[in-house]
Amino acid sequence: MKNTATLLINCPDRKGLVAAIAEFLYRFDANILHADQHQDAENNLFLMRVEWDLNGFGIATEDFAQHFAPVATRFSMDWQLKLSRQRPRMAIMVSHYDHCLVDLLYRHQSGELACDISLIISNHQDTRRVAEFYGIPFHYVEVRKDNKTDAEAQQFALFDQHQIDLIVLARYMQILSPEFVRRYPQRIINIHHSFLPAFIGARPYHRAFERGVKLIGATSHYVTEVLDEGPIIEQDLMRVSHRDQIEDLIQKGRDLEKVVLSRAVRWHVESRILVYANKTVIFD
Amino acid sequence: MKNTATLLINCPDRKGLVAAIAEFLYRFDANILHADQHQDAENNLFLMRVEWDLNGFGIATEDFAQHFAPVATRFSMDWQLKLSRQRPRMAIMVSHYDHCLVDLLYRHQSGELACDISLIISNHQDTRRVAEFYGIPFHYVEVRKDNKTDAEAQQFALFDQHQIDLIVLARYMQILSPEFVRRYPQRIINIHHSFLPAFIGARPYHRAFERGVKLIGATSHYVTEVLDEGPIIEQDLMRVSHRDQIEDLIQKGRDLEKVVLSRAVRWHVESRILVYANKTVIFD
Amino acid sequence: MKNTATLLINCPDRKGLVAAIAEFLYRFDANILHADQHQDAENNLFLMRVEWDLNGFGIATEDFAQHFAPVATRFSMDWQLKLSRQRPRMAIMVSHYDHCLVDLLYRHQSGELACDISLIISNHQDTRRVAEFYGIPFHYVEVRKDNKTDAEAQQFALFDQHQIDLIVLARYMQILSPEFVRRYPQRIINIHHSFLPAFIGARPYHRAFERGVKLIGATSHYVTEVLDEGPIIEQDLMRVSHRDQIEDLIQKGRDLEKVVLSRAVRWHVESRILVYANKTVIFD
Amino acid sequence: MKNTATLLINCPDRKGLVAAIAEFLYRFDANILHADQHQDAENNLFLMRVEWDLNGFGIATEDFAQHFAPVATRFSMDWQLKLSRQRPRMAIMVSHYDHCLVDLLYRHQSGELACDISLIISNHQDTRRVAEFYGIPFHYVEVRKDNKTDAEAQQFALFDQHQIDLIVLARYMQILSPEFVRRYPQRIINIHHSFLPAFIGARPYHRAFERGVKLIGATSHYVTEVLDEGPIIEQDLMRVSHRDQIEDLIQKGRDLEKVVLSRAVRWHVESRILVYANKTVIFD
Repeated sequence: MKNTATLLINCPDRKGLVAAIAEFLYRFDANILHADQHQDAENNLFLMRVEWDLNGFGIATEDFAQHFAPVATRFSMDWQLKLSRQRPRMAIMVSHYDHCLVDLLYRHQSGELACDISLIISNHQDTRRVAEFYGIPFHYVEVRKDNKTDAEAQQFALFDQHQIDLIVLARYMQILSPEFVRRYPQRIINIHHSFLPAFIGARPYHRAFERGVKLIGATSHYVTEVLDEGPIIEQDLMRVSHRDQIEDLIQKGRDLEKVVLSRAVRWHVESRILVYANKTVIFD
Repeated sequence: MKNTATLLINCPDRKGLVAAIAEFLYRFDANILHADQHQDAENNLFLMRVEWDLNGFGIATEDFAQHFAPVATRFSMDWQLKLSRQRPRMAIMVSHYDHCLVDLLYRHQSGELACDISLIISNHQDTRRVAEFYGIPFHYVEVRKDNKTDAEAQQFALFDQHQIDLIVLARYMQILSPEFVRRYPQRIINIHHSFLPAFIGARPYHRAFERGVKLIGATSHYVTEVLDEGPIIEQDLMRVSHRDQIEDLIQKGRDLEKVVLSRAVRWHVESRILVYANKTVIFD
Repeated sequence: MKNTATLLINCPDRKGLVAAIAEFLYRFDANILHADQHQDAENNLFLMRVEWDLNGFGIATEDFAQHFAPVATRFSMDWQLKLSRQRPRMAIMVSHYDHCLVDLLYRHQSGELACDISLIISNHQDTRRVAEFYGIPFHYVEVRKDNKTDAEAQQFALFDQHQIDLIVLARYMQILSPEFVRRYPQRIINIHHSFLPAFIGARPYHRAFERGVKLIGATSHYVTEVLDEGPIIEQDLMRVSHRDQIEDLIQKGRDLEKVVLSRAVRWHVESRILVYANKTVIFD
Repeated sequence: MKNTATLLINCPDRKGLVAAIAEFLYRFDANILHADQHQDAENNLFLMRVEWDLNGFGIATEDFAQHFAPVATRFSMDWQLKLSRQRPRMAIMVSHYDHCLVDLLYRHQSGELACDISLIISNHQDTRRVAEFYGIPFHYVEVRKDNKTDAEAQQFALFDQHQIDLIVLARYMQILSPEFVRRYPQRIINIHHSFLPAFIGARPYHRAFERGVKLIGATSHYVTEVLDEGPIIEQDLMRVSHRDQIEDLIQKGRDLEKVVLSRAVRWHVESRILVYANKTVIFD
């Protein structure tokens, strides 16, 4: 099992930045495995992801912050350190449509997703059986018009109890409250079944069919307080024709949704995503 | 040179339709080369495109309407007959950006587009030289805020004089008047540099960049009186990443625009497009 | 549940064909739902697929052959009639890699595949549990170098007992004997993990990696006696880069394999495929 | 006009590499615009591309080698320094098919390609007129079976006279001699009209048609002494169906060839390509 550290950095762009970071890592004998950076000239921003082997690294991870502080301070860095051995803890929320859930469970089992799936929460009982097949705790939380606050309180309690790092909305058909969204900034990933910003909101396949588009899309994004306006993580599209009825769009779209959501989840759990200006940088 | 007739039919769906059409063509000894049909159950519509060799066909084309009338009347058909020897006469309108124009001229010269390009109209002089290289008459029609009606009158006169069948807006950056649009129903093709209905209107690449989309698109469509809302003929997309600046989007987009517009033009001149319910059926 | 008949026709192209077929269907009051045809001028072939509603159709299906015989004889037709109520009976063969199997089982359960999955045969025990979850009989048939004929005899017995119409090799890692292949002409579908004819044979991802290709592919095809040379049903590709290691190719490829195999299976069970000249026509 | 330097590095991977390079650039006050690196663990290789603004850089470019020598020696680097102000000098070779040539000339004129097109060499006269339109010297060099060596001698003289850095085979239908290829290692780019390694050699569209593939491709690559086996730079594909005849494949393929070749040329002239193990790394 790999034992690496990944450092994510976001700071104003200045000369000497890379030299300082590289010198720091070299001083403590880091064996760098991957490094990638992005400079946004317009916003004068520097973004970096660097991953190294912890075997032979000269600093205990609990002392990293203390040693890195001078560099971080000098360059006014926002930074995070992620350890491959501390797998993110993920919750999946789902309603009736189970294709994204089933896909994520299979990918997790086959080793594609380097996280723990701690629990599944649904407002329906339909997916209990598949959750059990994959050995993931399933929690039914009823959501009605008149109990929304209570339902979310139950959900928060479950997230707290399981120390959840990431919430994936795998076709969860309820709107989250602003409080919910604020609690988990850049930690809620949603799949929307259109090529955003086309067809924001409800029934995108129906509206795509009515408009007569020649491709249908899917978009995974972080959830923010404005519906379907959060930073886009991934998008993809598939060709359709006049022969395709709404049911064909829905069926073809399922394949898109699965792939587009799973990529977003994988990149998130591998600490490949940095967000700024309501956009994402994907270090692939 | 091929010598074929193409019949396009649009009518209510009823039993016996195909039998009646096929029997008619067989009776006059048509050698069918291609036939394609589409049924829209929801709208109870039947659409068909059938192309046959005129060599050996038992009716002179000028008598076709008279002979076909009983079938057409019985099934309440909208129909058109197109002859490969009567090449559509096309006008191209263009402003500064010349990539779509240059692409269409080259494709036409190399035999990809079975039409005549009768003239090019521009509100700038930039493309006069390339028009001359390809031997196409070039007309400069100045468009100012205060002469729009006069300018369109000049354009109409040119279209009339050249008996234009199809007008292609190859990045023509002026809004056409409602009168212009009404004069040429389903005979004006535009290229919009986004995946409609995302980014309707001005500066779509800039807005795509700001939104942080992961693919950029282009859309060719028939022009109707509502901006960017006409029937979509073709769309395509290309992947972009955080590394791409606005200029990269514009550059990549040019390749999309050329391909997406040229497909629409080709399908139109080959009589492969039927429009209903503000959508297109493409018989490929 | 739909109750339709689908007629597949393959014959020399001659005038009057469509008229005769359409007249026949009209005479017996068929309500045609879809019709598609293809003419191959070079080979002088006519191929057709027509589907109609059996409600109100004037011939009992058991009498169809007798009534259709004069038309079929006149035009020297190869034809088949498929009834939507007679769902094809499918066997899936699988070895260790289970992603295609799991994908097919889920699609079948969700209604995407209009067939029965009668049994799963594997030379390993790994997939027994998921077979049971989906309620499909699982048969372990050991295959060793020295028992290949016996193993196939066991497999044939199972196919006979279940009256299998279609055999899907969902990453089944054994070479079938010529006898096996001859027993099920155009009834065995395989998924090959490359863009055929590139990387025929073993370890295509490794060879793609070594060659430094910029996209990886997958191909579904009917199995013939020449390895990886049967008629191609569907292919698709995915972009890779120098950042992708062999494991990344394998992981990305799984998504391709699933989609490319499932499309082939769906088209086969919906009688959308006609084969000639070692190629397929897909009536979509 | 931009005034940057781009350093390309290829060396064994060792700790301290990035620190040493970054420290060197920082010491001389380089304003880094882009940096990208790739580590190949299997081959223990480190590859890097770093581009900086020459304004304010503390070393005259003619002194760079001397100052950089200690770093380069310490890490056994293969390195090259490219200056944006020294535009590569490109020759294009072409036969009858002119679509790639016309495309490159237009892209060059519109500013997409940061190189000079110094001359066009053809074994036919067809493209003389378009060369003149774009103001590029055109040289007709006849190639017959019996004058091949002489013809290449003429070509070498032209390349020498124009100090050519890059030769682009834009559908040049002659096989180059081994001597030709050896003279210009990693400096000859070819476009092959298939998805290599499928359909190596002649008439790939015809063979793709016969095999019944569902997508056609194009591949740009550096030319080596083994036909169609050089390092692949870029590939792309387009969907085809049973409706497409050979002429349709050829027509669709032209759009692929143009895009795939032009990307390779652009990446080469922007010093984005590193080659090792007969593969390319593209720093995009």
